[in-house]
Amino acid sequence: MGRTSDAKAKILTAAESLLEQRGYSALGVAEICNAAGVPKGSFYYFFESKEALVLAVIDAHWAAERRDWERILHGDGDPLPRLRRLLEATEERQRTDQGSYGAVLGCMFGNLSLEMSNQADAIRMRLQEIFETEVDMVDAVITEARDRGELALSDTREAARSVVAQLEGLVLFAKLYNNPAQLHSLWPSCLALLGAVDREALAVRA
Amino acid sequence: MGRTSDAKAKILTAAESLLEQRGYSALGVAEICNAAGVPKGSFYYFFESKEALVLAVIDAHWAAERRDWERILHGDGDPLPRLRRLLEATEERQRTDQGSYGAVLGCMFGNLSLEMSNQADAIRMRLQEIFETEVDMVDAVITEARDRGELALSDTREAARSVVAQLEGLVLFAKLYNNPAQLHSLWPSCLALLGAVDREALAVRA
Repeated sequence: MGRTSDAKAKILTAAESLLEQRGYSALGVAEICNAAGVPKGSFYYFFESKEALVLAVIDAHWAAERRDWERILHGDGDPLPRLRRLLEATEERQRTDQGSYGAVLGCMFGNLSLEMSNQADAIRMRLQEIFETEVDMVDAVITEARDRGELALSDTREAARSVVAQLEGLVLFAKLYNNPAQLHSLWPSCLALLGAVDREALAVRA
Repeated sequence: MGRTSDAKAKILTAAESLLEQRGYSALGVAEICNAAGVPKGSFYYFFESKEALVLAVIDAHWAAERRDWERILHGDGDPLPRLRRLLEATEERQRTDQGSYGAVLGCMFGNLSLEMSNQADAIRMRLQEIFETEVDMVDAVITEARDRGELALSDTREAARSVVAQLEGLVLFAKLYNNPAQLHSLWPSCLALLGAVDREALAVRA
């Protein structure tokens, strides 16, 4: 029993790394098993298909990322500085990946959305749920800032969606240029999207 | 000679359509030839590899899209309304694709950036050039607006980059949700990113 759950964990870890580096379609079950060091029979013992495996990888990846988001967004301090830390952590993450893999890997959920959202409905639905939750989490923190009189937004959810879209767009550039510094402008852009009229003052407060 | 150039055009058309629907890795040369109705030998007469074909598809797709961008951005009228028309045309394009293919296809350049920018250097370089040109074109129109006193931006290039990032981020959502209406907020978000403090007044002017 110890051995089999070990094999499952090895498959998930290998698949996560390969999926981030190469995307879904370029990935084969044989290659995943090879990287994980487990026989192909083990793969089909745990997962009925590559799609089922990728759904499990998405869930594991999101569980870890969500913990990071919650730790930062629910942490101490004023709401806008917490949001700023989240966006800065995104840049740091891309920098860490670049150090480990030699390439900025981008956001797994954004990558899969553009590669294949119109091909695999189960994956599309899962990715939609994740992005909805991300928008909810950003919405909560900017609503808190608005309720403190720090922002004058009428539609916080729409603003939160534009912040997450900006994050995904700049992460796309960071991946394309293999340069995490493409994310430097994320916080000033976010302030602009939140209608923070006096950007300098808010940046100093944050 | 008429027949061979016809075969080349058929291959390019079929490859463009398949690439937009399925991405790069999921695409095989045999499938492209089958869709184009040409023998596989013809393929290698015109293109030395799938990558060479995809570079040609990118160039053709960008030549057409660039003509649209230039027609709109260099057209009549004030600069900000021209920028607004460009962003609205993006939504219309996604709506047209959805009508033709049953799915929002997103932006070919964004799709390829996230699927494979860390795998094929020639494609990555071509995509970088395209996005640089897009940012240049948006920069030119917002610089024109700034010089007319309609915007108070210090760094127009950075602002243009954030506008293109927002476009890509919202196109990602449109593809993920298979819903072009995800792009409705592109213009208000763009105004916010341009530091258009009085959004309502600018929206009315536009």
